[in-house]
Amino acid sequence: MIIDTHGHYTTVPPGVRIFRALQISNMGRPKKTPVAVSDDEIRASLEKGQIKLLDERGIDLMLFSPMASGMGHHFGSAVISRHWTEINNDLIHRVCTLYPNRFAGVCALPQSPGVSPRDCIEELRRCILELGFVGCNVNPDPSGGYWTDPPLGDHWWYPLYEVLTELDVPAMIHASATCNPAFHTTGSHYLNVDATAFMQLMESRVFQDFPRLRLIITHGGGNLAYQAARYRALCIMNKWEPFETFVRRLAFDSTLYSPEAMELLVKVVGVDNVLFASEMLGGVNATDPATGRSFDDNKPYLDALAWLTDADRTKIFEGNALRVYPRLCPIVERVRR
Amino acid sequence: MIIDTHGHYTTVPPGVRIFRALQISNMGRPKKTPVAVSDDEIRASLEKGQIKLLDERGIDLMLFSPMASGMGHHFGSAVISRHWTEINNDLIHRVCTLYPNRFAGVCALPQSPGVSPRDCIEELRRCILELGFVGCNVNPDPSGGYWTDPPLGDHWWYPLYEVLTELDVPAMIHASATCNPAFHTTGSHYLNVDATAFMQLMESRVFQDFPRLRLIITHGGGNLAYQAARYRALCIMNKWEPFETFVRRLAFDSTLYSPEAMELLVKVVGVDNVLFASEMLGGVNATDPATGRSFDDNKPYLDALAWLTDADRTKIFEGNALRVYPRLCPIVERVRR
Repeated sequence: MIIDTHGHYTTVPPGVRIFRALQISNMGRPKKTPVAVSDDEIRASLEKGQIKLLDERGIDLMLFSPMASGMGHHFGSAVISRHWTEINNDLIHRVCTLYPNRFAGVCALPQSPGVSPRDCIEELRRCILELGFVGCNVNPDPSGGYWTDPPLGDHWWYPLYEVLTELDVPAMIHASATCNPAFHTTGSHYLNVDATAFMQLMESRVFQDFPRLRLIITHGGGNLAYQAARYRALCIMNKWEPFETFVRRLAFDSTLYSPEAMELLVKVVGVDNVLFASEMLGGVNATDPATGRSFDDNKPYLDALAWLTDADRTKIFEGNALRVYPRLCPIVERVRR
Repeated sequence: MIIDTHGHYTTVPPGVRIFRALQISNMGRPKKTPVAVSDDEIRASLEKGQIKLLDERGIDLMLFSPMASGMGHHFGSAVISRHWTEINNDLIHRVCTLYPNRFAGVCALPQSPGVSPRDCIEELRRCILELGFVGCNVNPDPSGGYWTDPPLGDHWWYPLYEVLTELDVPAMIHASATCNPAFHTTGSHYLNVDATAFMQLMESRVFQDFPRLRLIITHGGGNLAYQAARYRALCIMNKWEPFETFVRRLAFDSTLYSPEAMELLVKVVGVDNVLFASEMLGGVNATDPATGRSFDDNKPYLDALAWLTDADRTKIFEGNALRVYPRLCPIVERVRR
């Protein structure tokens, strides 16, 4: 089975954008207005896009979460973020109910700058326990590019780690949009967040304090495999756990779009720690003139790694995802039947 | 000739740190106190470190600039930054005077958050025209990790670009320390700054407006070669100049510490756009257990690229540096004699 662990609902029907627009109108007195989206609109938003591409590319199942840049945690306030997050998670639930064999739900969290991650726990529990989601996304910089919250190694985040461990679900580290003109959302902020989160964790005690916590760093870790020697050196200079040991405490997704980068990722972090992922439809929605295929049609780069064994491929395309997202197991078993 | 284009004076004698410490004491009434550093102290600070390593590694000449993290543009005020920058640039001038065949000067600029880069021009002119320096370092984020200044594509930076073009000197893009707890200075902030600067320039009109401007992105471009396909896709999606064309408007230095990363850099940006550099003694001051050599002893990774021709090697080790830093030419001619 081929599982794509990283897809966002980037093609939401207009009713969702209308809800968001009204959040600006109602900023002074936030309210959760109804969201007018029919099942037919949801079907139309997916069948010509994600589902068609999953079929064409031989991908069985996609982990599906709310649009990442669209969550915009920097906007408004904690209550505005909560309303917006809830309606987006509910929408993902509707997608997974309509297409139970193609999508498994991953929730967004109602983060807000300066607000304790503890305030996200209620929504996390709702999504995992009531909606049957298998994981969540966490934004390490809810300020959207001003980096005003504590790093991931700070006790600030520990209440969230406790509940992730209790529920046995992982968190995928993923930025939302930036509101800082220094950054380009998908071109620099996303990648900076990946690399920064990796470094925050590497210099932290998080995995000593939460040995069962599972975190996924997206986009191949930002710069991870390219700068691995620098990270190795920092571990030695600072007497941290060796890089080779630390890196295996994390999972990295394969949302990279060149054969060289893909090979470097698998070599540096190892076949046990790579999750196949395309982020389709996401940041690289164009045809690569070098291949004639979409940039995000990246499974062929893994297929082409001749030194991978069949067992390695099973790990990258399926086994690692089931280990990192154990709540995915019954869904996969049902799909298989 | 082997030219290392990226070294910082990280081993400054104590008198320099004493000056810096007094800047805190005198914050309310900044003054430029005398710096007590003898020529013997300068010699001692270099001969067992950088010069010994240049000799051991067969490097003829190093472009030498003030310590990068130590510049701390976020501290104090514009006048405090100016005093500190001047004494550091003067110190580099003394190094180059003591060792005219081993070091060529690259200056720091007296940047300060929210202060126009125009205010750096006087010091830039002094260093180039009076001290014989060949280039400068520019910090795209003087706030030290809060990213409060406009991006490099903004007209905010244009007065500096005008003078760089007029003086025919390049700028090496290089962060200073971060004061934001989200970041690790050498492990995340430096690399984020490299990648962010690249993206700021790629979505800008800077090279249309300053076709003769030359900028160097350090540390292999942060994530550049690893994420090249994402950047290629963004150029296509946004109808920007093709990535392959844009990337050749910049130079990238080879401060990477693994053979795979080095090869990927040269392949992606081309042999005409790589400057050999080690950043010695800098961010990776340790022995690599995999090789038994220092991490920053990275020339062997370029030597080992069997597909490079002799002409390619001459470019990477010498020719590209002379093209990007034309004021280096008379210095190199003198060293040769």
